[in-house]
Amino acid sequence: MPKKLEFVMLLDCYGELLTDKQRNVMELYYCEDLSLSEIGNPIGITRQAVMDLIKRTENILLNYEKKLGFADRLGKMRDCFDKINSAAQSIDNEQIKNIIINEIKTGSDLL
Amino acid sequence: MPKKLEFVMLLDCYGELLTDKQRNVMELYYCEDLSLSEIGNPIGITRQAVMDLIKRTENILLNYEKKLGFADRLGKMRDCFDKINSAAQSIDNEQIKNIIINEIKTGSDLL
Repeated sequence: MPKKLEFVMLLDCYGELLTDKQRNVMELYYCEDLSLSEIGNPIGITRQAVMDLIKRTENILLNYEKKLGFADRLGKMRDCFDKINSAAQSIDNEQIKNIIINEIKTGSDLL
Repeated sequence: MPKKLEFVMLLDCYGELLTDKQRNVMELYYCEDLSLSEIGNPIGITRQAVMDLIKRTENILLNYEKKLGFADRLGKMRDCFDKINSAAQSIDNEQIKNIIINEIKTGSDLL
């Protein structure tokens, strides 16, 4: 998985466990694609300090994933729902099809 | 949900984020049903100290769930898989039925 996508997913999973500063800087870097200078200048810290903060926060996120594995599990569950959804399109019985597709929607919204 | 079941689920979700001592005491209390004395005596701490540790750890787990909500989400996904599984039993086409039931098994194993 590309590094950027990996950290966007980890932020989505574990962002609430970070400090506001850690989360804000990571979102600006990984989700908004701002440069280190663009992130650091408005809050009065150097490019190097921004990079250090990002590296430390990456390690915090990787450590949560190593311990809990939710990003990996949710990704695999997304694949399951996608495959069930594809197969369900071919069900002839409309009632059964609708029950399954509605449940897939409910489940996918939880991911 | 009964308090005991709630904390068994939270331990299952977030136990890896606790210290060994916190996790061990919680598992003895909530999963093995040991009394406060039975937990405290072998490690040389009082009933009151065990109770304090359990209360502090309960708050840590509740705080993780408040921030991340994984126990709630995984429980709801379990319901989705159960409902899809029930509906899938009535699918006439064996091939589609097998694909869906296999994917439900894969997904359920991730919960």
